[in-house]
Amino acid sequence: MQLITVGTVAFDRIETPFGVAEKTVGGAATYISLAASVFLDKMGLVSVVGDDFPQEVMKEMRERGVDLAGLEVLKGKESFFWAGRYHYDMNTRDTLETRLNVLLDLDPNLPEEYRQAPYVMLGNLDPGVQEKVLDQMNDRPALVVMDTMNFWMDSAMPKLKEVIARVDVLTINDAEARQLSGEHSLVKAAAKILAMGPKYLVVKKGEHGALLFNNDRIFFAPALPLEEVVDPTGAGDTFAGGFIGYLARTKDHSFENMKRAIIVGSALASFTCEKFGIERLLEVSREDIDARIQQFIELVDFDIELVKA
Amino acid sequence: MQLITVGTVAFDRIETPFGVAEKTVGGAATYISLAASVFLDKMGLVSVVGDDFPQEVMKEMRERGVDLAGLEVLKGKESFFWAGRYHYDMNTRDTLETRLNVLLDLDPNLPEEYRQAPYVMLGNLDPGVQEKVLDQMNDRPALVVMDTMNFWMDSAMPKLKEVIARVDVLTINDAEARQLSGEHSLVKAAAKILAMGPKYLVVKKGEHGALLFNNDRIFFAPALPLEEVVDPTGAGDTFAGGFIGYLARTKDHSFENMKRAIIVGSALASFTCEKFGIERLLEVSREDIDARIQQFIELVDFDIELVKA
Repeated sequence: MQLITVGTVAFDRIETPFGVAEKTVGGAATYISLAASVFLDKMGLVSVVGDDFPQEVMKEMRERGVDLAGLEVLKGKESFFWAGRYHYDMNTRDTLETRLNVLLDLDPNLPEEYRQAPYVMLGNLDPGVQEKVLDQMNDRPALVVMDTMNFWMDSAMPKLKEVIARVDVLTINDAEARQLSGEHSLVKAAAKILAMGPKYLVVKKGEHGALLFNNDRIFFAPALPLEEVVDPTGAGDTFAGGFIGYLARTKDHSFENMKRAIIVGSALASFTCEKFGIERLLEVSREDIDARIQQFIELVDFDIELVKA
Repeated sequence: MQLITVGTVAFDRIETPFGVAEKTVGGAATYISLAASVFLDKMGLVSVVGDDFPQEVMKEMRERGVDLAGLEVLKGKESFFWAGRYHYDMNTRDTLETRLNVLLDLDPNLPEEYRQAPYVMLGNLDPGVQEKVLDQMNDRPALVVMDTMNFWMDSAMPKLKEVIARVDVLTINDAEARQLSGEHSLVKAAAKILAMGPKYLVVKKGEHGALLFNNDRIFFAPALPLEEVVDPTGAGDTFAGGFIGYLARTKDHSFENMKRAIIVGSALASFTCEKFGIERLLEVSREDIDARIQQFIELVDFDIELVKA
């Protein structure tokens, strides 16, 4: 295994000001694995679904190199279900309904060949579950990336901080960075969060891009301005999957290469926004990705001589 | 005159979650002129104040090359006053009070030497007043930059659109771009707004940076993540002043040079946020500006080879 991912595999109901998807396949681990599969061919997925989860999607994942020995299928039970509604800005949303269903039974027991994976992606989940995955690794992985959200800061902060202390890269949004650190300035927030353990902090700002912090260094990657944003669900997970997939492929954890991984993750995330669910991500070709990375290069390119008096 | 600016010259009362400034000098034309003076030495200012406006600030402006023949001083009257309160995010604010005072009497009559200025900055004001300034120019200026806001879209849209049709560059924020165009996607909004007349659209996103649109080209400039944001008031005007000041100095209206002007404007705006009012902007040296431009260069710098299968 080049990478293992723990996270939800689920159904979503998504309302935006411009349309509705009644029941679409989603879940953090789904997006992460599909995005990482652009760069990798042997990944493991740790999660649980009911027997309502579509066989075709599992087949699709296997064909892309995602091993499902770690995906428990519970007979007669229903998969995790989330319903949300986006505001007009398409950058903020309300949760309308959460049915945990099988997620209540998620107690990961990693297949033996998962336990030596050098790259581990802890998708947004109960930090207790994230910790169990880390505890089952045979050695300290080469790189652990963790995603989380404000819900766990509100309900499980001590455990959350324990897990944060054990990871290399933490990805959260700007409001969460402020909440976790108690600092308004993102520069100060990043310093406090890096002192909690991670070497890198990625602050995701949705349509406003992402910031990468490491020691005193900062890198900013914009989001690509899109003609049409249909559904941002999964964009953050797609970003994380592209990010860790690129790193697992290149095996270079320098700041320079982390910046590249951020651009690659941002490029993949921009595709996810263009259709509901995982649909657009499944269609994307290597040429599409290269063309989009080229757009990122041009978007921020400028050439200035410092102004002399 | 290299540049003339019309806009408010005013007092502000500013509340942030972290502090209060009871009565500080502000106003769009104040920030614009001071920022432009980094690059220019002969500028005109068109506005009106009461005799309560501090002589020291006028002296300071004159010393920086801002001619005040176009600044009417009305005896026994009070200057325009605005009071606002910033939300915790420091990126949105509520207006608490607006006392127009002398602004009700603003009926610009440009001094003769202002009427040949090649660069004109129409600061945020009643579009009827902005139009009067344009009408008094002897020739079509080389470049007209216009700033405006949602208030004029709500109250004077027909006149606003008349003026927009006559300018080269329009600067507004993202919500205003959506309101003006009726389009949610900024890419689509920009296309509609450029069809209204301007060759360039600058979308200001505060702490999230700025976008420049021209035909099918897009450039994104981040805002610099700051250790401490004390007061963002005037940041947009400082940006505009640095932008047009740089263009008036370099006399190059190509897309490449517009990008440089955006970076320079963003660098200057970042200083304005560091103290209340115009205080920080007055202190800034040429070396400070160069150092900050260097930070922008590093902030977005990355080097990626397109990923091959």
